[in-house]
Order: sequence, then C-alpha cells, then structure tokens
Amino acid sequence: MASQTIPMGQYLFQRIKQLGTEHIIGVPGDFNLTLLDEIYKVSGLKWIGCCNELNGAYAADGYTRIKGSPGVLVTTYAVGELSAMNGVAGAYAEHAGMIHIVGMPARHLQKSRAMLHHTMKANMDHATYIHMADPIRETHAFLMDDKTIAEEIDRTIIACLRSRLPVYVYVPVDVVSVQVDAKRLETPLDTSVNNKDTKTEDEIVNSVLSLIEKASNPAILADVLGVRHGGRDLIRKLADLTQFPSFSTPLSKGVIDETKQYYNGVYNGKVSFPGVADSIEASDLVLNIGPLPSDSNTGGFTREIKDEHLIWLGHDFCKVQDQSFEGVHFLPVLKKLVAALESDTKKYNLPRPQKKERVGVPVLNDLRSGKIEQSYVWQRLGQFLKENDILLVESGTAQFGMPDSTFPPNVKLITQTFWSSIGFTVGACFGALIAAKEIKHTGRVVLIVGEGSLQMTVQEIGSYIRYGLKPIIFVINNNGYAIERAIHGPEQGYNDVSMMWDYQKMLEFFGARQDLGIKAKSRATKTVEELEAVLNDEEFASGDNYQLCEIYMDTFDYPWRLTEQISVSREKAKKAALTAPTGDV
Amino acid sequence: MASQTIPMGQYLFQRIKQLGTEHIIGVPGDFNLTLLDEIYKVSGLKWIGCCNELNGAYAADGYTRIKGSPGVLVTTYAVGELSAMNGVAGAYAEHAGMIHIVGMPARHLQKSRAMLHHTMKANMDHATYIHMADPIRETHAFLMDDKTIAEEIDRTIIACLRSRLPVYVYVPVDVVSVQVDAKRLETPLDTSVNNKDTKTEDEIVNSVLSLIEKASNPAILADVLGVRHGGRDLIRKLADLTQFPSFSTPLSKGVIDETKQYYNGVYNGKVSFPGVADSIEASDLVLNIGPLPSDSNTGGFTREIKDEHLIWLGHDFCKVQDQSFEGVHFLPVLKKLVAALESDTKKYNLPRPQKKERVGVPVLNDLRSGKIEQSYVWQRLGQFLKENDILLVESGTAQFGMPDSTFPPNVKLITQTFWSSIGFTVGACFGALIAAKEIKHTGRVVLIVGEGSLQMTVQEIGSYIRYGLKPIIFVINNNGYAIERAIHGPEQGYNDVSMMWDYQKMLEFFGARQDLGIKAKSRATKTVEELEAVLNDEEFASGDNYQLCEIYMDTFDYPWRLTEQISVSREKAKKAALTAPTGDV
Repeated sequence: MASQTIPMGQYLFQRIKQLGTEHIIGVPGDFNLTLLDEIYKVSGLKWIGCCNELNGAYAADGYTRIKGSPGVLVTTYAVGELSAMNGVAGAYAEHAGMIHIVGMPARHLQKSRAMLHHTMKANMDHATYIHMADPIRETHAFLMDDKTIAEEIDRTIIACLRSRLPVYVYVPVDVVSVQVDAKRLETPLDTSVNNKDTKTEDEIVNSVLSLIEKASNPAILADVLGVRHGGRDLIRKLADLTQFPSFSTPLSKGVIDETKQYYNGVYNGKVSFPGVADSIEASDLVLNIGPLPSDSNTGGFTREIKDEHLIWLGHDFCKVQDQSFEGVHFLPVLKKLVAALESDTKKYNLPRPQKKERVGVPVLNDLRSGKIEQSYVWQRLGQFLKENDILLVESGTAQFGMPDSTFPPNVKLITQTFWSSIGFTVGACFGALIAAKEIKHTGRVVLIVGEGSLQMTVQEIGSYIRYGLKPIIFVINNNGYAIERAIHGPEQGYNDVSMMWDYQKMLEFFGARQDLGIKAKSRATKTVEELEAVLNDEEFASGDNYQLCEIYMDTFDYPWRLTEQISVSREKAKKAALTAPTGDV
Repeated sequence: MASQTIPMGQYLFQRIKQLGTEHIIGVPGDFNLTLLDEIYKVSGLKWIGCCNELNGAYAADGYTRIKGSPGVLVTTYAVGELSAMNGVAGAYAEHAGMIHIVGMPARHLQKSRAMLHHTMKANMDHATYIHMADPIRETHAFLMDDKTIAEEIDRTIIACLRSRLPVYVYVPVDVVSVQVDAKRLETPLDTSVNNKDTKTEDEIVNSVLSLIEKASNPAILADVLGVRHGGRDLIRKLADLTQFPSFSTPLSKGVIDETKQYYNGVYNGKVSFPGVADSIEASDLVLNIGPLPSDSNTGGFTREIKDEHLIWLGHDFCKVQDQSFEGVHFLPVLKKLVAALESDTKKYNLPRPQKKERVGVPVLNDLRSGKIEQSYVWQRLGQFLKENDILLVESGTAQFGMPDSTFPPNVKLITQTFWSSIGFTVGACFGALIAAKEIKHTGRVVLIVGEGSLQMTVQEIGSYIRYGLKPIIFVINNNGYAIERAIHGPEQGYNDVSMMWDYQKMLEFFGARQDLGIKAKSRATKTVEELEAVLNDEEFASGDNYQLCEIYMDTFDYPWRLTEQISVSREKAKKAALTAPTGDV
C-alpha cells in the first residue's frame, strides 16, 4: 500500500511534474537546499542551475513561452528573490506566467525575528520581501500552516495557469519535510480556462458570427496575449479557415503563417509598412484577439481602428462593437467561434478570397555588397530562418528591425516589446533551449542580441554550453545602446558600452573549446559579402555546433521603425504642448 | 550676475558634487537620458557606465564604503530600478547608504496612466515600483511638484548622509528642465550627525568614563556600523589611546590595526580563534561600538558578553549597563569620549599595558608544498597584503576564511557578511576602484572571489578594463558553491556550477589584450609551490598591470570557521527541538 502522506517538497514538485514541466531552474542558497533535494526524488524532473537569479527568471519566462507549462524558478530568501524581481515583473507584464519558489528561514526563526543573514530593518520581519513582490504576481502561497499546505500549493498553481501570470510559493526550510495528504495527487489539477457564464460566451459568438456574415471586408489582428493565453493554434486555424486578411503586431509576429497569401504584415499603427495601416483600418470588421495595446506595440498609440468595426477578444474582457463583456476570457469564445465557422463554411462564405493585393511584405534593400545596413540586415536574417525555428530578438534595434522580415512557417518569436528589459533574450534563450529539448523540437533556436544587451546577462551563454544546448547566436556590434542614441544624445558617452570585449573569444571563454572536445565556430562580419558567406554556410546554418556570428554595423544607423516611432511620439508630445522629448517612445 | 534659477537636473548633480562624489554610476534608459546630460554640465562630475543595474548598485555600495560620500546610481524606470533592488537592499542592510536616482515617465503620461513600455497591471500606476522599494530605503523624493523639488532633493540627501541608508530620487523626464532656486546651492547641506539632546550625550560619556576608571580589564569590540557611520578614525584613536585589548568582528575586520599589540583578533562568539572569546568575555567592561549582531557576525548568536559588562554604542541606540538611551547616535558620544580620555590620560591610567598574552593571531598551517588547503591559504593571502590595501572578500569560503589572516596596517576590508549576496564583491570592487581613484589612494585593490560568485556578476570585470582600473584578482576555483556544500548536500548537483569556464582567458575576453596595447597576466595555481611563486612575484604584487591568479582548491575542503558555525547553528536548532538542519547558519 502506498504511503498516505508525502513531504511537502515532494508534493510541490509532483504537482509541477504533472503540469508537464520537466526542469526546475534556479540558484541554490542555504534556505532552499533541502527543498532542492526533493527535485531529485521526482521521476522525470531535473535541476538546471543558472548563473544568477535575474537570468533564471528570464529563463523561466522563455521556457514558459515555448513549453506552455510554466517555467519554475527556485531562489533563496531575500538576495535571490530580489535579484529575480525584474525578470518576474517582465513575465507579469507580458503574461509568461512562471512559478517562483522561494526558500525561507525556518518558522521558529521567523517568529523570533532572528537577525539572520539576508535580513533587514530593525523589526526583522522576514516577510518584508513577500510584500515587496505583491505587484508582480497573481497570487502567492506562504506556507506557514501545516494544515493548508497542499491546498495552498494547488490554489496557487491553478491561478498561475489560468491567469498566465507569475505566482510565488514561499517555503520555510522546516516546512519541506512536513507531511501532506498524498491522495490529492491522484486528482490532477483543473487548470482549464472557463468563463462563469457560458451563455455570455454564446452571446458573443453569435454577435461575432452575425457581424462576420455581414462584413464585406473582415480582418484578423492577432496579438500576443492571444498566444500567451494558449490561443495560438486556434488563431492560426481561424486565419486558415477564413482567409481573412490577417495581421500580427510587433509582439505577436509569427502567430500568422507569413507564407500565406492572407498574411498582410505587422500592424503597428503609423509605424507599419506602407499599405498595412490603410488596409486594416479600412476593414469593416477587425477581430482583435489577445490585444496588448502598449506604446511600442501600437506605433506609439497610433492605432486607428474604429470602435464600430472592432471586436476585442481579451483575456479579461471582451467587447463587440459597443457591447462590453467584463471578465470574459477570449479562449472559450474563440474555441466556439472556430467550431461554428468550421461547421458552416458556406454561410460565412469561407474561405474568403483576398480582395486586394497583399501588403506588409515588401523588400526594403536587397544589398549585395558593402557595409551592413539596417535596411538590409533584418530582412536578410528573416530569410536565414527555417520552418519551425524558435527566434529570440532582443530589445533595441533588433526588436525594431526584425518586423521587417518575413518568416517561414511556424517560427516562434520571443521578444519583449512591452516590458523591454535589455538582456532578457540571453536568459530567455536558455529557457527556450530547455523547453525545446523537452518537446524534442526539430527547429533551431536562433538568438539575435545587441552587444549592449548581451553585456547585461552574458554569463548565461556559459549555461547553454554547460548543458550542451546550441543556439545560433548573432551579436549586433554597433558600439553601444543604439536605441538610446536614436532617442536622445546620439554622441553622449552614456550611450557607449565597452567596445573592448572580444566576442570572437566568448564561446571559448565559457567552455566551447577544443580541449573539452567541443566544436564551436565564431565569425565576425563587417560587410554584406562576409555576412552572406556566413549565412550561406551550411555548417553554420545547421546549428549542429556552437555558432556565433558577430555583425558589425554603423553606430548611427537605426531601423526605420525606431526612427519613425520616435518621431510619432515626439509629434504627440508636441501636440500635448509638453516638453517631453523623450520618455514616451 | 549669475542666473537665479537652475534646471532641476543641474541642481541635483551640483548637490551631489558638493558632497564630494565625483562619479555617477549607472545604465542609461529612455526615461533618464536628458537627466544624464546634466552630469556633463557639472564641472568635476563624470559618468561611469556599468553593464547592468545590479552590478551598478553593488558598485555604488562599494564606492560608499571607501569614499564615505555616497555612491550614486542612476537607473531607468521599472526594468532598471527593479534589477538594482537586491543591491540596494544590501546597502540598506549593511548601512552603505547610496543615492539611487530613477528616471521616470513624464508627469502627463503618469497622470493619464499611459500603457508605456516597462509598465504593468491593469491600472497602469507608474508609481508601483516606488512602493515596492519602500522597505529598502530611508526615504525618497518623488519629484512631481515643481514647488518642492529643491527642498525634497535636499531633505533626501541629508537623510542619506545621516542615516547611512539608501535613498531614492524619482525624476519624471519632464522635470529635468524645471527651473529651481539656484541660490540654495550657496548653502552647503548640513549633513552632520547630531543628537537632539547633548546632555544625554554627556551623561553617557560620564557614565562610560567612570566605568573605565574603575574597570580592571576593559576591552574594545569595534563592529562594522561604527565604520559605516563614520567612526573608523575615532575607533582607531580610541584603541591607540587606551591600548585596551581590542577586537573586531567578521564584518569589521581591519578596523583595529592588527599589527598592534593590543589587537586580539576577530570576535565571533564560539566561532573565534582559541582564547579570543575567553578573553573578551572575561572583560569587566566591553566598549562595543557600532554593533551589527547578525547570525554570521556573532558565531550564530553565541556572543556571551554579560549586560553588566557591556557598553553598547549604536547608531540608533546606546546602552550603558542597564541604562538605555533610545535614539542616541554613538558618533557625537564617541567624539566626546575620545576627547575626554585624551585630555586626562593619567586619570584613566592610559595607555594601559596589556595584562595578558595576545590572542587572536595564531598561525594555522604554514604549508610549504602540495595541495592548497583552506587552513593555509587565507593566512597566506593575508601575508600578501600591504599597508593601505583595499581588500574585497566575497561571501562564501573567502568570507569565512579571511578572518584567519592578520592584516598589515590600514587595510580596508569590504565584505558582505550580513546581507551575503554572492557576486557582490565583483560589482563592489568596481565602485571601490572608482573611489580609490578619486581619493588618489596609494594602496592596491585586491579582490578575492569564488568562481560561483564570479559567475553571478562577471561582466563587470569588463568595466574595470574599460575604465583602466586594475585590481589584483584572485579566483578561488573549487568546483561550485562550497559554502552550500558545507551546509547541505555536498555532492548534490545543485551545488555545482559550470566547471567549463576558462578563467585564464577572462581578462583577454573582456579587453585586457595585447592588440589593444594592454598588459595583463593570468595564472593558474594548483599547488602551494605555484601559489607561492605567484605571490612572491614582484610584477604580480605591484598591481601595475591587470593580474589574475586562479587558485584551485579541493571541492570538499572548507574553512574551519564555516564548519564550526554550521555545527553551532545545528546544535542550537537541536536544542530548540526543531528539525531545521539548515537555513539558520
């Protein structure tokens, strides 16, 4: 007969394993060591050490975006959890819900307010850091009471999955061995997303269907929260089924298959390719799924879709023209909508033929030689991509440049256009690589990062190598924070970074070396010819070994989208008769 | 005639310059760029870019500890300020008060709750992060009101200097150019530490003097908050004047001149050299200045000084035997005490001759060959030090080992035994180097860091090189987090770090290379003979070039103090009949 109880630590990690997550990411500390022991006792669960907690949070975020099941980060009391904060906040902003587990001092020491290391303040309240993290999580479990441990863990995990926001589990060291009811594990957690009122769902679906029937020129605008909340496949199915002109946003690029005729580009308000804004704004019915209408995802708030043409299907709110449905999650609605359209394609005239010429996929600059320019490089890197690649694009020029490219089918893009924390992709790439390994992903993992961002989080490159994970790395070397130069102070010293790092030696330093029997190749490219040679090299493109390609670009060359977005924002600031030349870009 | 007003940004940086701070450390972001412009307009003030904000906070902390005037960190809204949190919290815990300036969105955008990048939450409250940082600062200025800008800046800076705790200044971008009263700058800020009631000071001083007169066996226990609150020179004077047996703590090591006969070692409760605890605990009057009685600074709470023998001179509280004086700062008291003793040395029988044999400076292990052992290496590294060196000792084995050493005169130690955030010293060393340059420090800067800690914050090594700053770096390479191994799970995988990094290539990667005309030398040592050769090499010891010495040590060899402290803590936990084998070390 199986034991009827199980230690708390076991329970937590068994629950996590049930979600499908197979790796736990983190940094050990004396308040979490016994908890970490429990990982090794769960079949199929593995520990992954990262270099620091911020990078670990980025990795858990990147993992979540690829795997779907939540990335799990374990840190230690105070020093660890605080270091991770910016990474968790980014996951909150962009709905890449992770589980952040924090090891804490034993309960008797908390109660006696002992002046332990990592503690602060005269009152020695060990819960201080718990309060600090309140705005960056959906909920938390603070496991102080033996009686509620199991249900608190369950409640917190369910909240993470349903909200797609980060949650915290705080584990005092003495709680790890507390016995909890093992039988609960026989019932998997119900993490499905349901609306309270299915009638409201039907009402929305019927309204939308009736509008689709009447619409002469419907369009789909698929945004990132649609992806983050598990709607990616449904969105792709909807686009394929209807063949409505379909658009993504800077944050959601790739959600629509860009090789299809119905794909019409990245809609980013006035900061879009010619024809894109005109096309979607002329639509008499825009199905906007999972919107995230931040400044940099809307061309500086220059989206112009009239309310009477808009169907807003959000994760916490839906709206059909002027009718609002508070608290309704789009996912069940979208499921029903797709099912309805599928069941009666004739009624809705599906698939609808494209009425107009396709927009959103022009070629900007088909350079063949000379200096590597912004107007060329992003589309060219897009051509380098293959079906099923996972692509990480760092904040900065890469993020503003990459929307110029056209993706092959089924490319998954990770970029952080809303939270925009530079250095994010280096950590997120580690998580994406772990997730890709778990799902036996056949595509490559490609990281494009500027040198200023890379310097923020560079040590995690060492973790790729430690665990034998091989992305293809592009380093954009243009002498500093180009995005900041474009915004203000192009020649000011504060926009410089160290230009002395030798990226050609980076992989070697971190362990991809002959003497360890590891094959790696790093190349520097300063001209189009050199870059073309690398991109056309089969060994490089295979991604079978560690590969790094450094791309030198001019310090003052910026992607047109960045320049345009800044100009739009300044225009708006001027109109508000305010002297705010920066800060609202 | 000089202008009667001055832009806010100018005002802030002029005030900072008046404090003596000559470098501003930070990372640019679009919400702080125009603010950074103002730095360049202040004569004698310079910008120093760091790789990321956590390292920047560590650097500002390290700067403060050496310079005395506050380190200043500038970050950007949300992503920057959150990344810095752990570093600022450490400065709070250990009273290395810095000024953290955060660039924020323009006020009109805050008021309209615009969904800007770096923002979160449905309500888009841009002050969310301000609230999060509340526990890790003494006070803050949120510059939203033109009328109070100058006085708010002044109030905040004064609070930083007096409390020696971090403060925040939040600057919306549109506020940078707001004109404020320039005439205020003609009056320097009064940052002196005064007690409200000088009579109480006198009462304390008289009580202490009378006790000293009577005491047959008085001692000095000088702790770190004495140093942090500006009492270092007074403490040294007190020890020199009285020649009472004088002790430091793990955190304050070096505050007493260790070459003097009256120096009797590091008192850390039961975790002290033989004779040290007996000696101080037998004293009939212990002058305890600037105490920080945390677990790792008191041998796991095993200090045993009886209340009737104790004079506690704290930064917020003084106590003479059973009489408490709430809110009294030790600094003015110590000044008066030293002055009184100086004026009438005969009355107090000064200097008093040492009655007993000196304790606290034994030799542990005078190895001449073979493997490099913990029982040898720390004392040997202590012998490598020279007068006036600045020494940074990372949390972990280095921190628990270094108290074994005996310092030459006037060594300034930076270590973070209370907050204990690994990776701290790599950033703090950057700040210490900057401060040392400002004060034209003649000693060397020596960094001792374990490889696990180094991996946390390694990129800042690149900043040393970028700015031509040359510490002597020792890397302890012992295959992982040795301190965690000693605590729990010595062979568990979570205590491993990547063993693939080639530290011999580190300086080269970050820019200390022949092709840039920079001289650097890296060496690896696996035996005592090899280490001795390096330590005895004049070029290495000169510190004129970039120098790195990697010290390989056994994975399971721990400093005796660490083992002992763990054993003490376990004993205490057992006594409490609680199963808390870790977490209270």
